[in-house]
Amino acid sequence: MTDFNIRAAELCEAGKTMYAMGMVPATSGNFSARLNDGSIAITISGRHKGQLTPSDIMRIDVQGKPIDPQRPSAETALHTQIYARYPEIGAVLHPHPMNATLVSRRWKEFIDLRDYELLKAFPGITTHATNVNVPIFDNDQDIPRLAVQVDAYLEENSPVFGYIIRSHGLYTWGNTIADAMRHIEAFDYLFGCELQLKGK
Amino acid sequence: MTDFNIRAAELCEAGKTMYAMGMVPATSGNFSARLNDGSIAITISGRHKGQLTPSDIMRIDVQGKPIDPQRPSAETALHTQIYARYPEIGAVLHPHPMNATLVSRRWKEFIDLRDYELLKAFPGITTHATNVNVPIFDNDQDIPRLAVQVDAYLEENSPVFGYIIRSHGLYTWGNTIADAMRHIEAFDYLFGCELQLKGK
Amino acid sequence: MTDFNIRAAELCEAGKTMYAMGMVPATSGNFSARLNDGSIAITISGRHKGQLTPSDIMRIDVQGKPIDPQRPSAETALHTQIYARYPEIGAVLHPHPMNATLVSRRWKEFIDLRDYELLKAFPGITTHATNVNVPIFDNDQDIPRLAVQVDAYLEENSPVFGYIIRSHGLYTWGNTIADAMRHIEAFDYLFGCELQLKGK
Amino acid sequence: MTDFNIRAAELCEAGKTMYAMGMVPATSGNFSARLNDGSIAITISGRHKGQLTPSDIMRIDVQGKPIDPQRPSAETALHTQIYARYPEIGAVLHPHPMNATLVSRRWKEFIDLRDYELLKAFPGITTHATNVNVPIFDNDQDIPRLAVQVDAYLEENSPVFGYIIRSHGLYTWGNTIADAMRHIEAFDYLFGCELQLKGK
Repeated sequence: MTDFNIRAAELCEAGKTMYAMGMVPATSGNFSARLNDGSIAITISGRHKGQLTPSDIMRIDVQGKPIDPQRPSAETALHTQIYARYPEIGAVLHPHPMNATLVSRRWKEFIDLRDYELLKAFPGITTHATNVNVPIFDNDQDIPRLAVQVDAYLEENSPVFGYIIRSHGLYTWGNTIADAMRHIEAFDYLFGCELQLKGK
Repeated sequence: MTDFNIRAAELCEAGKTMYAMGMVPATSGNFSARLNDGSIAITISGRHKGQLTPSDIMRIDVQGKPIDPQRPSAETALHTQIYARYPEIGAVLHPHPMNATLVSRRWKEFIDLRDYELLKAFPGITTHATNVNVPIFDNDQDIPRLAVQVDAYLEENSPVFGYIIRSHGLYTWGNTIADAMRHIEAFDYLFGCELQLKGK
Repeated sequence: MTDFNIRAAELCEAGKTMYAMGMVPATSGNFSARLNDGSIAITISGRHKGQLTPSDIMRIDVQGKPIDPQRPSAETALHTQIYARYPEIGAVLHPHPMNATLVSRRWKEFIDLRDYELLKAFPGITTHATNVNVPIFDNDQDIPRLAVQVDAYLEENSPVFGYIIRSHGLYTWGNTIADAMRHIEAFDYLFGCELQLKGK
Repeated sequence: MTDFNIRAAELCEAGKTMYAMGMVPATSGNFSARLNDGSIAITISGRHKGQLTPSDIMRIDVQGKPIDPQRPSAETALHTQIYARYPEIGAVLHPHPMNATLVSRRWKEFIDLRDYELLKAFPGITTHATNVNVPIFDNDQDIPRLAVQVDAYLEENSPVFGYIIRSHGLYTWGNTIADAMRHIEAFDYLFGCELQLKGK
């Protein structure tokens, strides 16, 4: 259980950081991490994301079935889809940064981030003279259906570091929870810049 | 008195959180919770809402009459009106988020929140594909008169999760203080989005 | 010295609060409080306002002459002017809120705050249905000359709860340090509202 | 080693402050301080700037060659260029304030800061009635080439208190780490004002 305890503590800490940044208001958002045995630690549905303790984290299997008796996040299928597709990925984080929500109301199918030094926060990017494309999917309460749509997009496009669900929030991932947090900070900063500059 | 102590501590904690969010500047705002015996714990008039201790909380009866010797919030009638109408409600919170004040200067009789995932923060809402209407009442120093106006609105409309008083602030409520805090975070986020998007 | 120690500790705490609000960047701002013997405790020139300790506070007399060996704030004359004019005033606070600086670049001789509930944060105001006029003076490195100009304005106008120096910052005061802090929070909120609404 | 320990601790503390201000997201930024023996303490490449400990700081010589076995910041040459040019300078700080990035996308070759009281945060400036010119260089992954360009600019212009790299961040320096932090707070405030006022 040491493995679970370490990841659970990291997810709680990440939740506190995102709450302080205003990214997980009103119990929104959900977070997960892959465990050594291939199962997944994920936030229990409906918990306050700025006050998480390990008792707010449970285990599911790779198909999203609960191993522990609680009910996992309603968006579990969007987490397992990422773990199934990318074997190296160890964490999936889904906050609701206001900048992501605003981008999704002002851009249509994607936002293109271009020429920023901070793009180097994403793996494999070594220069600002490039672009990162972030797709925007329409929101859908049918999570398995949305997961299929995301999976089809990721099959056709590479690399993808995260995506936005319209009027909803951001999904991003990384080899570790720290890597995924780095992506969240980079996306939020870059979305903030683009919103400030749009139409200027 | 255990019941009072627990609720008073929760109201103090909620005050600290709202103060850190900039929502209760300059001793503004007032908060209350229903106690087991039907009386109400409410903030004493004029206290610093980011530095509340249980000595800043007093008891009133359901008509708003003081049980303890201090003077309750000047807006007590707006709290008791909610408790009288909704027997399940356990907490009423009234901060002054700048976003609520700005919404009330840019919208007229109501603001309509539509298509946001975060609408699911409100009880009974299970999809983004809906709308939540938040009425805006003109400010009035005659609080009993304002309470009558609010009560008439709530008689005609359901569900209502909160309302704005123009150039003043937000009223929202919940079964518990945590529920009312969740509504505050959701309203503030959604008002912030609408303000950013208006006219864009 | 107990009197000095209490006020000095309160000024340090107020400085930490204002620094956390971003209002005293880069060692800017200065704060003072009147002592029982009629002398004044004031911040020493050039200290970090978010890390104040009582050793950063010194005493001056009512004419602004140092009682202690250090050099008081360069703007001492703007503090003593207020204490000389208003015998009931116990504290003068001068932060540099960005909202005050921005107001002074977008309004000319004054800003008029009108119809806000938060106006009741100022003494003697009991309704939102009023207005508070905040004068804006051009900046001047000749502080005694600026103090004369402020004094002439205050002679002609009453009540005045604070003023802005253009591209510089805010002066406000109160019977206690807590009262002056309440005015700072109210002014910052109201300036923020007016800036967001201007031209909308 | 006492000298290294003191500066390393100060750089860690400065990093925490800048992270809390949102200025070093996603492990961005790098910081250094000159040591008594002429060598330089600098952040190791890729570390989280809000969680720095002295083990995240290493020593380089004046040419930027590592004295300790780790890999210093990729932008080391921009630090050593400043130390070589200005013998009195004891610290160089490079955060990524969003305001600096936005300024660099909305202004072309420089931004001129004029008439602000806060300009007095920079050494030798004693009045608001002046201007500070901040050059903006295009971003370049060839850091030695960029350092040559910066050096040529500083050869021709004086005084210069900092510069922006486009879509990247801010470089500033001071006799001490505290002085450089004061410049960061002043630049961020002044860039924020200029962005709010542009086109108004």
